[in-house]
Amino acid sequence: MKITKIQENLLSLQRSIDSGTAEQREAVRNIIEAVRKDGDTALKKLTEKFDGAVLDSLLVSPEEIEEAYSLLQPDLLETIREAAQNIRDFHSRQKRESWYYERPDGTMLGQKVTPLDSVGVYVPGGTAAYPSSVLMNVIPAQTAGVERIVIVSPPDSNGKLPAGVLAAAAELGITEIYKVGGAQAVAALAYGTASIKKTDKIMGPGNIYVALAKREVFGTVDIDMIAGPSEIVVLADETAFPNEAAADLLSQAEHDANSSSILVTPSLELAEKVRDEVLRQLETLPRKEIAQKSIENHGHIYVAETFEKCIEVVNVLAPEHLEILADNPEGWLDAIKHAGAIFLGRYSSEPVGDYFAGPNHVLPTNGTARFSSPLTVDDFMKKSSVISYSRQALENNGAKIAAFARLEGLEAHARAIEERLKEGGK
Amino acid sequence: MKITKIQENLLSLQRSIDSGTAEQREAVRNIIEAVRKDGDTALKKLTEKFDGAVLDSLLVSPEEIEEAYSLLQPDLLETIREAAQNIRDFHSRQKRESWYYERPDGTMLGQKVTPLDSVGVYVPGGTAAYPSSVLMNVIPAQTAGVERIVIVSPPDSNGKLPAGVLAAAAELGITEIYKVGGAQAVAALAYGTASIKKTDKIMGPGNIYVALAKREVFGTVDIDMIAGPSEIVVLADETAFPNEAAADLLSQAEHDANSSSILVTPSLELAEKVRDEVLRQLETLPRKEIAQKSIENHGHIYVAETFEKCIEVVNVLAPEHLEILADNPEGWLDAIKHAGAIFLGRYSSEPVGDYFAGPNHVLPTNGTARFSSPLTVDDFMKKSSVISYSRQALENNGAKIAAFARLEGLEAHARAIEERLKEGGK
Repeated sequence: MKITKIQENLLSLQRSIDSGTAEQREAVRNIIEAVRKDGDTALKKLTEKFDGAVLDSLLVSPEEIEEAYSLLQPDLLETIREAAQNIRDFHSRQKRESWYYERPDGTMLGQKVTPLDSVGVYVPGGTAAYPSSVLMNVIPAQTAGVERIVIVSPPDSNGKLPAGVLAAAAELGITEIYKVGGAQAVAALAYGTASIKKTDKIMGPGNIYVALAKREVFGTVDIDMIAGPSEIVVLADETAFPNEAAADLLSQAEHDANSSSILVTPSLELAEKVRDEVLRQLETLPRKEIAQKSIENHGHIYVAETFEKCIEVVNVLAPEHLEILADNPEGWLDAIKHAGAIFLGRYSSEPVGDYFAGPNHVLPTNGTARFSSPLTVDDFMKKSSVISYSRQALENNGAKIAAFARLEGLEAHARAIEERLKEGGK
Repeated sequence: MKITKIQENLLSLQRSIDSGTAEQREAVRNIIEAVRKDGDTALKKLTEKFDGAVLDSLLVSPEEIEEAYSLLQPDLLETIREAAQNIRDFHSRQKRESWYYERPDGTMLGQKVTPLDSVGVYVPGGTAAYPSSVLMNVIPAQTAGVERIVIVSPPDSNGKLPAGVLAAAAELGITEIYKVGGAQAVAALAYGTASIKKTDKIMGPGNIYVALAKREVFGTVDIDMIAGPSEIVVLADETAFPNEAAADLLSQAEHDANSSSILVTPSLELAEKVRDEVLRQLETLPRKEIAQKSIENHGHIYVAETFEKCIEVVNVLAPEHLEILADNPEGWLDAIKHAGAIFLGRYSSEPVGDYFAGPNHVLPTNGTARFSSPLTVDDFMKKSSVISYSRQALENNGAKIAAFARLEGLEAHARAIEERLKEGGK
């Protein structure tokens, strides 16, 4: 973990997004075509090919859900319920209602807010199982009022999904769960097959094939975001505890060899201590191999002259997770312009937010916090504008509207207004 | 304009999105690469190639803006100002503030809302000039508090932009306007060149090359949406005036040969009258050729058994613009699930919303109102979650959080929590 003194030119700190190779794009396009053409047959064939599982039915059965429950320790189930409650409480505060207002001339204007009809949630498979992903995607959808929520997830070679994932889904009342992953799952959610009805929006992270498939179907359906590699920035002054800062950097690093863990501090002394702690704590981690690769390739320590300069670095990085381990962390909140989630003070270790506190853990990665937000209830709702003009309002403004239309060369627009204002018009 | 009686199976009404040919995608990718590699040189070369304009400077000069003002009639300028005021008034009601709350254990949670730093607005060129596009994109950005707002638009072969566009921009105080269009403009806004600094989000409609370029750069920057062909649905009962319904259908049809104008009604008598009126009014339109193509290829009249059945048809179509020309139109508002903008009653002709009333005219097209919204102030802001855990909160919940992390196989996450809870921890 290299210590770099920051001088000027901060802009080069950003990583670019992985938009896949030409071969990967081609493979994804072929998978989508196959699913559109052959439906469930294609899904089963691709699941056998990529996941090694031969399935009769893609839908998870009630027996599988029961089995999942029996496998989960009761106190863990209790924790999942408590986390769900916290997440529900936080997200309920995001929910917005329709609003309308009138003008003196009788015009009524407003914004009608309605939930999406259906969403699909992609829960990744692989080395780690993510019941927390289920909670973080499903609960805001339920808070919004989405009627149909579908989960897809790639099965293991025995055709099973992880017990934690199934139990978390069942706890939330979700039973439409399909054992299918990859680009083929995205295609099914976007275009539908005989067994999987199409949805309106696809949520959730996945590997490069999932990301490319989401980009490909975007427009036909909506997608949440194109998730890139995940990152944490720890912004710390000399009051921070090196062991705690190091532990948090490693909690990001263990996710993925592509994850990025960055310390930004004005204190060279802290920088050196954190570096040593990272190397020490790394030794005993079960996922040491992954974390080590991540730290070696994407771990950074930036030392700047002042804490203010450190804030500038943070705003350029626009991190997914930002921890402020400093004296009076709230005092710096206003200065932070771009970050997915901001963790204040030493008791707000990132995993607090990953699992339990309530705010969403689906966050803009890889510098996209410059323009994107955490997943919210808004992502599961849409707005319609409402316009009701009175006769008086049209009489007052009709000529102006028609003139504006003619300025843009759109005569039929002007005439549509004038058709109402004709002499003797009813 | 064919009259179709609706029976069952409404789902086939939707059109699919145009995702371009392989050649178009390749062309767009090459243009983006050229701009990334050669910057302004590429922009000027491509502007000469596609727009026939040879430019010294891409930036619009103060002299050009002054000239634009002198070309615009004073009363039109006054109308633009009044429209801007209405748009500002409506959008100011959308603006959201940050919020925070505390729990009894000392935890503080919240959502911090901040504007984007910079956005680029694409204003299309071509046969019609669209100052209203400038108002509808720039005003919500200003309401959000975006500091840097850039306009790009393709010049004519004399290297000029339309006076209306320049005057509308200047009225709003926007002076960073570049004479460049197409995929090359999108590339410049996403990656930056020597003369055009990169932006965080790209807004605005364009042709298929612009749409493909936006899809391509999505992720590196944000984009508003992939706009498809535009449409209007007029939902009318027997109380509607055929001449007014027909005029509104034609106002959509004159936009583009790909536009779609649809009447949905339970009244066969009205259907026939509207059809005849459309054909009659069409004859004298300056943009007759475009409107006629649109009506012939994408114009429809659907007659359903009841008004309730008509509403079902509307919800399947999920139209960009919906007019309700019926007795007591407000009474049907709750039943409408999917529409970009809803115009209630005969005095709410669509052009009222295109130019003047206040709500945005940038709307989800081609059935995407199922999952998308009109352009709002939200599109120019982003959220950051804020999490501040107290010592007590971490002591109460730390063991549960660590157990959840271990359920997901993420040991370093668990240890990050436990590092704070060690015996003798400060």
